[in-house]
Amino acid sequence: MRGQKHWPATGDRWCFGGDWNPEQWPEPVWREDVSLMREAGVNLVSVGVFSWSWLEPEPGRYTFDWLDRALELLHTTGIRANLATPTASPPPWFSLAHPDALPVRADGVRLRHGSRDTYCVAAPAYRSAARSIAQRLADRYADHPALAMWHIHNEYGTGCHCDHAAVGFRAWLAARYGDLTALNDAWGTAFWGQHYSDWAQIEPPRATQYLSNPHQLLDFRRYLSDELLAACCEQRDLLRRANPDAPVTTNFPVGAWVPVDHRRWAAELDLVALDAYPEGVGIEAEQQTALLADLARHWAGGRPWLLMEQSPGGLGEHGVQVSKAPGRMARLSTSHLARGSRGVMFFQWRASAAGAEQYHSAMVPHAGPASRIFAEVRELGALLPRLAEAEVGAVQAEVGIGWDAASWWALQAPHLPSPELDYWAALSRAHAALWTEQVTTDFADLAGDLRGYRLILIPSHYLASDAVIETVRNYVAGGGHLVVWYFSGVADQAGRVRLGGYPGAFREVLGVRVTEFQPLPAATNVALTGGTEATRWSELVQLTGAQPVLRYASGPLTGEPAVTRHRYGEGTAWYVSTELSDDTYHELVRAALAAAGVDRGGAPPGVEVVERRADQQRWRFLLNHTDGPATVPADGVDLVTGATVTGAVTIPAGGLAVVRSDGS
Amino acid sequence: MRGQKHWPATGDRWCFGGDWNPEQWPEPVWREDVSLMREAGVNLVSVGVFSWSWLEPEPGRYTFDWLDRALELLHTTGIRANLATPTASPPPWFSLAHPDALPVRADGVRLRHGSRDTYCVAAPAYRSAARSIAQRLADRYADHPALAMWHIHNEYGTGCHCDHAAVGFRAWLAARYGDLTALNDAWGTAFWGQHYSDWAQIEPPRATQYLSNPHQLLDFRRYLSDELLAACCEQRDLLRRANPDAPVTTNFPVGAWVPVDHRRWAAELDLVALDAYPEGVGIEAEQQTALLADLARHWAGGRPWLLMEQSPGGLGEHGVQVSKAPGRMARLSTSHLARGSRGVMFFQWRASAAGAEQYHSAMVPHAGPASRIFAEVRELGALLPRLAEAEVGAVQAEVGIGWDAASWWALQAPHLPSPELDYWAALSRAHAALWTEQVTTDFADLAGDLRGYRLILIPSHYLASDAVIETVRNYVAGGGHLVVWYFSGVADQAGRVRLGGYPGAFREVLGVRVTEFQPLPAATNVALTGGTEATRWSELVQLTGAQPVLRYASGPLTGEPAVTRHRYGEGTAWYVSTELSDDTYHELVRAALAAAGVDRGGAPPGVEVVERRADQQRWRFLLNHTDGPATVPADGVDLVTGATVTGAVTIPAGGLAVVRSDGS
Amino acid sequence: MRGQKHWPATGDRWCFGGDWNPEQWPEPVWREDVSLMREAGVNLVSVGVFSWSWLEPEPGRYTFDWLDRALELLHTTGIRANLATPTASPPPWFSLAHPDALPVRADGVRLRHGSRDTYCVAAPAYRSAARSIAQRLADRYADHPALAMWHIHNEYGTGCHCDHAAVGFRAWLAARYGDLTALNDAWGTAFWGQHYSDWAQIEPPRATQYLSNPHQLLDFRRYLSDELLAACCEQRDLLRRANPDAPVTTNFPVGAWVPVDHRRWAAELDLVALDAYPEGVGIEAEQQTALLADLARHWAGGRPWLLMEQSPGGLGEHGVQVSKAPGRMARLSTSHLARGSRGVMFFQWRASAAGAEQYHSAMVPHAGPASRIFAEVRELGALLPRLAEAEVGAVQAEVGIGWDAASWWALQAPHLPSPELDYWAALSRAHAALWTEQVTTDFADLAGDLRGYRLILIPSHYLASDAVIETVRNYVAGGGHLVVWYFSGVADQAGRVRLGGYPGAFREVLGVRVTEFQPLPAATNVALTGGTEATRWSELVQLTGAQPVLRYASGPLTGEPAVTRHRYGEGTAWYVSTELSDDTYHELVRAALAAAGVDRGGAPPGVEVVERRADQQRWRFLLNHTDGPATVPADGVDLVTGATVTGAVTIPAGGLAVVRSDGS
Repeated sequence: MRGQKHWPATGDRWCFGGDWNPEQWPEPVWREDVSLMREAGVNLVSVGVFSWSWLEPEPGRYTFDWLDRALELLHTTGIRANLATPTASPPPWFSLAHPDALPVRADGVRLRHGSRDTYCVAAPAYRSAARSIAQRLADRYADHPALAMWHIHNEYGTGCHCDHAAVGFRAWLAARYGDLTALNDAWGTAFWGQHYSDWAQIEPPRATQYLSNPHQLLDFRRYLSDELLAACCEQRDLLRRANPDAPVTTNFPVGAWVPVDHRRWAAELDLVALDAYPEGVGIEAEQQTALLADLARHWAGGRPWLLMEQSPGGLGEHGVQVSKAPGRMARLSTSHLARGSRGVMFFQWRASAAGAEQYHSAMVPHAGPASRIFAEVRELGALLPRLAEAEVGAVQAEVGIGWDAASWWALQAPHLPSPELDYWAALSRAHAALWTEQVTTDFADLAGDLRGYRLILIPSHYLASDAVIETVRNYVAGGGHLVVWYFSGVADQAGRVRLGGYPGAFREVLGVRVTEFQPLPAATNVALTGGTEATRWSELVQLTGAQPVLRYASGPLTGEPAVTRHRYGEGTAWYVSTELSDDTYHELVRAALAAAGVDRGGAPPGVEVVERRADQQRWRFLLNHTDGPATVPADGVDLVTGATVTGAVTIPAGGLAVVRSDGS
Repeated sequence: MRGQKHWPATGDRWCFGGDWNPEQWPEPVWREDVSLMREAGVNLVSVGVFSWSWLEPEPGRYTFDWLDRALELLHTTGIRANLATPTASPPPWFSLAHPDALPVRADGVRLRHGSRDTYCVAAPAYRSAARSIAQRLADRYADHPALAMWHIHNEYGTGCHCDHAAVGFRAWLAARYGDLTALNDAWGTAFWGQHYSDWAQIEPPRATQYLSNPHQLLDFRRYLSDELLAACCEQRDLLRRANPDAPVTTNFPVGAWVPVDHRRWAAELDLVALDAYPEGVGIEAEQQTALLADLARHWAGGRPWLLMEQSPGGLGEHGVQVSKAPGRMARLSTSHLARGSRGVMFFQWRASAAGAEQYHSAMVPHAGPASRIFAEVRELGALLPRLAEAEVGAVQAEVGIGWDAASWWALQAPHLPSPELDYWAALSRAHAALWTEQVTTDFADLAGDLRGYRLILIPSHYLASDAVIETVRNYVAGGGHLVVWYFSGVADQAGRVRLGGYPGAFREVLGVRVTEFQPLPAATNVALTGGTEATRWSELVQLTGAQPVLRYASGPLTGEPAVTRHRYGEGTAWYVSTELSDDTYHELVRAALAAAGVDRGGAPPGVEVVERRADQQRWRFLLNHTDGPATVPADGVDLVTGATVTGAVTIPAGGLAVVRSDGS
Repeated sequence: MRGQKHWPATGDRWCFGGDWNPEQWPEPVWREDVSLMREAGVNLVSVGVFSWSWLEPEPGRYTFDWLDRALELLHTTGIRANLATPTASPPPWFSLAHPDALPVRADGVRLRHGSRDTYCVAAPAYRSAARSIAQRLADRYADHPALAMWHIHNEYGTGCHCDHAAVGFRAWLAARYGDLTALNDAWGTAFWGQHYSDWAQIEPPRATQYLSNPHQLLDFRRYLSDELLAACCEQRDLLRRANPDAPVTTNFPVGAWVPVDHRRWAAELDLVALDAYPEGVGIEAEQQTALLADLARHWAGGRPWLLMEQSPGGLGEHGVQVSKAPGRMARLSTSHLARGSRGVMFFQWRASAAGAEQYHSAMVPHAGPASRIFAEVRELGALLPRLAEAEVGAVQAEVGIGWDAASWWALQAPHLPSPELDYWAALSRAHAALWTEQVTTDFADLAGDLRGYRLILIPSHYLASDAVIETVRNYVAGGGHLVVWYFSGVADQAGRVRLGGYPGAFREVLGVRVTEFQPLPAATNVALTGGTEATRWSELVQLTGAQPVLRYASGPLTGEPAVTRHRYGEGTAWYVSTELSDDTYHELVRAALAAAGVDRGGAPPGVEVVERRADQQRWRFLLNHTDGPATVPADGVDLVTGATVTGAVTIPAGGLAVVRSDGS
């Protein structure tokens, strides 16, 4: 039954719209809004995301009338609602009545009302109040004809270090470890005399004198993810009870600060919804957009998902809100569609005149509909129906990159061998290299099924369970190709080092044994054979079966292996013990793709290529990110122009094509 | 009556002196002090600024004897006292008895005694104790023959986020908004569900989970300014009751952290007193000195004011205390005189041997009077009487720059379109451009009377009330010239965006409609027509009457207007949508000056020129900041040398001249 | 009697080993450990440093059995124990039972368990518990045959600002100052009205509104040093009672944050133990190693001391753990031996699999004994016995550098004339210059006996007591040579400026009077005569007897003296008023060495040279830090190779020699 409702009932095969906040505007503006929505082809809007204090201005006094009118207006206009529970922003009265439910920082500072997310998810008073307002919404709107889906909360990710969190953490640890002996062992409490003799002694990782215990930090992230998920599931359950057919989702934020294991969450939801705010304003925005979309598809288990938020007009870099040039919004949106999103949603519909995000880009900007941005929104709304047929195609990927939220968390601990170790940067670099080679990429759970892939990349996958070791070994032995970068598989799931030589988890399959990390200080390079230089990291690699591909050519490691290749069973495994220069990195990836026999299309550089296939048809999404026209070999029909394409399609500068061809 | 006492009774037409802290020294040093003061021509000293714990070492036990002797010594020497209430530094016993009166940071940390300014101005215990010690001083010294004026407190500017401040803030808000509906509207509480349903829910902007409400931040600054002012006025009233003739002042600090609207404060005081500590050690120190002095004159409503503190020997840059080269102290001091100060005062008279500012420069340095610095102090003391006649002249300015403390505060909010938006930098750039062109500049309240100006510059005046809109419109319509820079007039006084296109307040008068901000990331330039480049910011400008002056010549805005000019009524209004390079910025300013017919003197570059005029005479202050002699056209008498000047005066490197000529 | 036991009873003349933490490993690993120790020549291990929670897992329940077995294993293997009291890391149960004994930051945040050093040393509950566990250890192991020495605590250095610390601080101040008048005078409380009228008003320097009182900050550092020392002495006394023969030590950390006056501490201990973690990965690591070792020898009063901790494999730079190249560990270790250490100890024996320092380098790395690092450990273990004979030789130094912990602390205050003032950097620069000149250097207490030195350097010795003035005057008058750098002798011990011209303490002996500091802003140089440039600092120097050596040649000080030399009595004193370039700095040091007649050996550059002498023999330690062979004049026997050396010894790249020659 779950499979049947992974899709919001918009009446269309796609979703198009954004967050609509009628409570910020007088009702005449609402009417202009729905008229402009119709003009733009909007068919779905997120409503009520932060409306708690507007729905329940005083404890127990409810004011649903405005929401009744807003939903009715949508319904009569034929636009569906992605109706949110407003629990991400408790009202001021709640905070005043329940100061113990305000969040507490690691240093003990209790944060106050005046922003959003000012709650501790472990506080009983908060959980109870959240269930209560969600139940009210469920009771009132579960059968509303405008209801397309439920949107629980907003961007779950708020941590807390208060005593409620301490209670929850202890219970979670007791469930995970069973007894204190196991916990003391996993956390290495023999170091620095941190042995716990009673559960009551355990606290969240609060401000302390010097370095915190890294295993405690890691488990606290896991606990927070599960505590937040429990709160989400409470709402999911009551919404499902009220309407078993309406799909339930919550929007996933992505960031180093997010203590949420999205893959684990996705299993509890009807639909994965992504908030995509790439950082960077150059081509890295395109690359990171693709990465986020591919992650969303991974979390969704390959099923369709939905881009729930993106910025209509801006890209961020160090707080500067840089404009998307004409056409860029359409290309970035289409990249999401190509990679599995069933629609394009934005935050937000109409730019707020006031409040903390009054300068957040919107579909209808401060200048109003007579603006470049709204014009492009309208064009995009017109394009979507023409592309919608591709949604039956499955995204094709022959290459996977290992994804592990816990490794990201663990690499945020202090006192690693180098502060330059950066999970997200390593992941992004691998993904961007494949993007540049026009290879579509999946993310993969290394303990899951890898058999479908020709090539697996493992960058910065610090933690590896025994199951990962086994799966990766079988994958390569069975003929798979593998590239592992340094500081992967170094520790087990608790973060305890696997002894005997790095990387403990992958020594056998790689045919190497690293006896020493030798991080490089900033601005210090090391030469490699072949005339290239590497940075940041090096290792003393002992060959135990592998062949050297590149060697160190300067410094104390001169002559030692830097990059190796190992024949293991029917497959091949590369190991990269240093941070390669761009040229060498890409060369290595190309070599691995070639060895693995991965097909790379034939589009010119700067054109993003993604293919989706169904039984008898395939759709090639071609996004021209260059400032000149691009000609790509293709035969079929370009859904964008409707033109028949023979031999090749020429895409204008900054434009895009989606070519359907028959036969798989 | 107020007009009659805007001047301290030094017996001279000028003031010269500094903070004298006898409590730091044994009495033999006092006698050396007054002897050196006489030698240097000192006629006024600030006394008792931080002496509370020395005057009331235990609650209710007063030790005025030392101050009696100090004032008597001054009196017998013929030096007058600027007698301070010591309320900026409550004694340790007060903090111990009233911990609730210690200040609290936004994160809830209560600050402790051990510095200065360790009080919450909203705490009843503090207010009561402050009134009490001030009353004691008033009772004892109101009729003292040495008393020249009262100096309340020191550099009001201390904020607090405690519960007393919360109570005060709520009362202030209730007075401003009347009801919660108006407050909710002004603060945009519909965003993120921050709707208040009871005044008790409102707090100062304390540490919170994510972005604070920008309107709350802004109003809290306003509230603090008013609360501090109320405290100041309590003291003013009791001092006036004790002696209706002695003028009352307080010294104004300037800085981004200062929550004080000095213009509003000036109306409540008898004399504006300025503490001038320019940041920077190059020519920007001269430019910023001029800016501070011009601000003081603005706050004083054009009346005389007093430079109360400056550093005798040093200029600060990133904490480095760089020495003023020989002659520079005299030039900087004279710049203040030229711009309306009735004297030159320093912090402090004698360098402290101990304490937090033991390395603060002083008129008598650690080395003692046998020192370069004291020699220059003596020279300056000898110069002042010769220049004093110019005080009857009014400073002449044909150009005004819009000043708005609230815009400065508002641009310190998070989440603006670019963190590079900087009120003070924008203001300084406009002022420095006019300084470089040797044009004397007023600051102006844009809602006030602009009719006297030929040209008004509006840099970064983010907020604009309806009154501002009206005044500026009338000013230009009536023939005025106007230059508006980007991010001016974007929002109303509450900080709510004026919708329909930027800059909402000035669209009509400028003949443009900006539909998009396009901030530029760091290190990204954009070309303009005419071969120049701009940085930091750009905009999509739609012409609605204006003519393009410069266009964008690279990037996505290529061909769009960058700088425009609009004929509006009898006047002309320029709009500048980007951050111009130095050359282009100055070119634009010169063009506007020429169009407005502003006279710019004929001095060579590097000479600062200010003119003061009375009915039959004018005085030209000429400060040669270059390292060579400078010849400036002039006729009259140079008050510095006493020489008659015909045709031109030649000023030695680093020197100055003040030329009086007859006829206006 | 004290002199008889400054040496741990290893049975050998040297110590070799590291921290051994059996509690982190299953017992089979212990057996491998001792077998590897024997293989490597280890004869001493530090045990139990953080084992409190392992020894007393619940209050009053002791689990000594594992430690019994571990010590027995050591004993049967012939390895001795440096047995630690575990008081640096109280168990979680202690923190839970005594939250008032957790440390509090200056901002009032109470730090929590979860790291190490989570105690307030002034808390009665902590002190009592610490004495109690130490007594238990003393009772049980005082007569254990494996016991070589006692190791109290770990790296004393933890500060606290809680109310217990306030009580202690007040008592300490009362003892130091006798009455509040003296304290008010020393602290300059007349400034900013900080006058104290009751001891109860005094607090630790907690977070306050603006600049803290610098004298309060300085005295609080002194208090913390003494409070920590009192805690240490309590343990020392009970350990001595249990076994009057076992030497007692504690390991000294070095860092700007360390509130410990090691010289004062050393007098209370049987042996100075040093933890040496140089910062930097270039040759500065060698230079700083020498500096730390020379400091340890100073603290030890010239007696033997012990290198207790260093990293086997890594050097730190901005958190990057850079590997020591092959041979470097041996050279750095030998530098310690050359400079007076009686052994080479490491942290730690076996790399931890888990915990906050799981990536700290170790003698047995994660890879196990089959590793480069363990191979080098073994080689070093084999070398030590060959070098041990040199321990009877005394380190020869003709040059001393003034050392003053309080000056270091005082230069960490805010609001000095320049934030570039840096005690450690100035000290390091002087020491490194001598190191480069191959001159062995002592550190010296300037109030102590200076008669043995030909040359004394005084860099950044900000504070100077009257005793220092007297000693330095007598030293120079009696024929000594002296170089004083700017910002030395400026203030007295309380930090009060010595008036009348800088540097108040040394004006007479230097024959100069500085009337003005003129710090230079960043990136601003000033030319000196002779074609060199200086940075950061300059001064207006008046000659009162001295001759100019170099003059300023640009800027406002052009023509004024920059470096001076003064004949005073039989001696000569240089003054350096600016930060010289490298070339000029070294030239000045060479000139002073030459004038003082200091012998500088004849080794090629890059070879570190230290000599130790006994009555009839001398040992020259020659460490070749270059990457080529180095030939050094020498006659005798090279203890490293056993070869007879005639005329010269050639040391391979990165190698070392220790040449014994007969005759003194």
